Amino acid sequence: MGPGPSDVPQRILEAMARPTIGHLDPAFSTMMEETKALLRYAFQTENKLTFPVSGPGSVGMEMCFVNLVEPGDKVIVCVNGVFGGRMVENVKRTGGIAVVVEDAWGTPADPAKVAAAFAANPDAKLLAFVHAETSTGAQSDAAALAAVAGRHGALTIMDCVTSLAGTPVLVDEWGIDAAYSGSQKCLSCTPGIAPVTFGERAVAKVRARKTPVQSWFMDLNLVLGYWSGEGKRTYHHTAPINPLYGLHEALRMLAEEGLEAAWARHRAMHEKLRDGLETLGLGFVVAEAARLPQLNSVYIPAGVDDGAARSRLINEFNLEIGAGLGALSGKIWRIGLMGYSARQGNVDYCLKAVKAVVG
Amino acid sequence: MGPGPSDVPQRILEAMARPTIGHLDPAFSTMMEETKALLRYAFQTENKLTFPVSGPGSVGMEMCFVNLVEPGDKVIVCVNGVFGGRMVENVKRTGGIAVVVEDAWGTPADPAKVAAAFAANPDAKLLAFVHAETSTGAQSDAAALAAVAGRHGALTIMDCVTSLAGTPVLVDEWGIDAAYSGSQKCLSCTPGIAPVTFGERAVAKVRARKTPVQSWFMDLNLVLGYWSGEGKRTYHHTAPINPLYGLHEALRMLAEEGLEAAWARHRAMHEKLRDGLETLGLGFVVAEAARLPQLNSVYIPAGVDDGAARSRLINEFNLEIGAGLGALSGKIWRIGLMGYSARQGNVDYCLKAVKAVVG
Repeated sequence: MGPGPSDVPQRILEAMARPTIGHLDPAFSTMMEETKALLRYAFQTENKLTFPVSGPGSVGMEMCFVNLVEPGDKVIVCVNGVFGGRMVENVKRTGGIAVVVEDAWGTPADPAKVAAAFAANPDAKLLAFVHAETSTGAQSDAAALAAVAGRHGALTIMDCVTSLAGTPVLVDEWGIDAAYSGSQKCLSCTPGIAPVTFGERAVAKVRARKTPVQSWFMDLNLVLGYWSGEGKRTYHHTAPINPLYGLHEALRMLAEEGLEAAWARHRAMHEKLRDGLETLGLGFVVAEAARLPQLNSVYIPAGVDDGAARSRLINEFNLEIGAGLGALSGKIWRIGLMGYSARQGNVDYCLKAVKAVVG
Repeated sequence: MGPGPSDVPQRILEAMARPTIGHLDPAFSTMMEETKALLRYAFQTENKLTFPVSGPGSVGMEMCFVNLVEPGDKVIVCVNGVFGGRMVENVKRTGGIAVVVEDAWGTPADPAKVAAAFAANPDAKLLAFVHAETSTGAQSDAAALAAVAGRHGALTIMDCVTSLAGTPVLVDEWGIDAAYSGSQKCLSCTPGIAPVTFGERAVAKVRARKTPVQSWFMDLNLVLGYWSGEGKRTYHHTAPINPLYGLHEALRMLAEEGLEAAWARHRAMHEKLRDGLETLGLGFVVAEAARLPQLNSVYIPAGVDDGAARSRLINEFNLEIGAGLGALSGKIWRIGLMGYSARQGNVDYCLKAVKAVVG
């Protein structure tokens, strides 16, 4: 019950153990097409270019930046935790100019500050922000942020690694141009696959680039030939067949439950956990309005040793929860209720275990 | 029985279906250390920095180039098939200058030509070559090529995607500075993981870079904190836990059989397949001395339609073999005998099926 990977249901583990077939086998193509359709449902988008990247979420992130940022492009980046900082690093390494909009860790990105940054930088071509900061448990108002970018004709890149399937991610309604996620959070698949989606404006920007994409592996122009589904698939790389079996199964389970039901389940489990943790005297890091139900950041009570308590949780209760990162290291715990982990039994067990180590 | 992915033994599939644990769990660290030691055995190296990249072989390739090539660096690249061409593309995208040494597809890279290229380009800093060209089935003399580079003080990058565990790969004995492979060839694991190894001279070059590595995800300086095993592991990305269970099991199986025994088995199975294919009138693309036992490229007999014959193999015999790539498309077949696929039953079955479609 850390900040991911979440528990993986047996059904997904079994799917991953199916016999490996060739990545150019017609049966694999059929599964790929289904996976893409299911991902469009998860992202709530009609984007044709929606597919699973053969790599961790960090590769999904880098794929967005290396394709959409050209050397010299100015990019406004919201930083309110670890992963916003990583976006800045990505902008720099693609030769872009990062304009950082900072908010305190544990708070959401502020649309008013973003509007001010656009006013000061009218030549900014992109806005990048993290919808759900895995390092703090804070959720930003993606619709409001994307609207600011839209008013300035800028494209948006959104990190929804921790939000996808846990809280609403409405790519088309919000007007997001590129988004990336991970397989191991609220989808409850094993880590290693990054769902991504790119809208038409993003694809047009990639096609109009004056410089080649610096990464061969992540170049959308090449990946398009493999994933686009337009005519004959061109060999690009050998896809991770078995992890993709797992993702396909995870997405089928999500469709069976329904997105709205999944969001409601995460919310309901969070409320039970929250009530229990508050009864134990643990306070939340993030204000209620911006709190991610799937990632509960709480302050470690005074007098409780972080390392010792988490060791006891692992050794005595076989329970992993997340430590704080960066400035919050040693100060907070991050308790995940993601995907399959967001269920009553987990909430009860976690409360029992936490009570034992803080009691 | 194509050019990979190879058949995955049930034992490895079952390993992949084990419950997912956290990537920072102590039990996972133990498995990682074992995996690194087993990879050193597979690569025949003492290199400390030997680990599995969380991505397909193409990411392993790109990791070598983005770290070892700095803008302006001259790199001599042997091209005798698709994957040598991909190396050239990698050099260009890192801002390096590729000096291409071409050899005909189906022949090995010629050390004499490489020596001439170094003579003409004494400022070349690297030599890159493909040990086993998956597109043709030709194996190059890695020891001879690396020796030429060594005489000119250049570092070597070797692609051993298809050779690792199928034919001898002797990283230390040959003096290779960086090598990458894949999980889905002669290791018979599922695709998606790229074993890599970097020697001390390579690490020194990365540490002495004047420019940052252009990729955040592939930057060895950051990855080192995660995989080096020196002290506390720094979070870099969420490792693909379940595929790594599979790789660990695959490497254990290799160690149980023994490298020499695995090489001998690939050789013996190749000889049986070769005899059978030649009896059927199929000629080999690659001369005997440079022929990879694990990848048998043969000319499609006159009068046999490539697509129709491979469709029959899949539909009637449930057997996938590889098509030709590039200039060899429609002209050759590539029959893999990789890892777990290199066994008597497969050879017999393949010969029966091929006989039916070419008869």
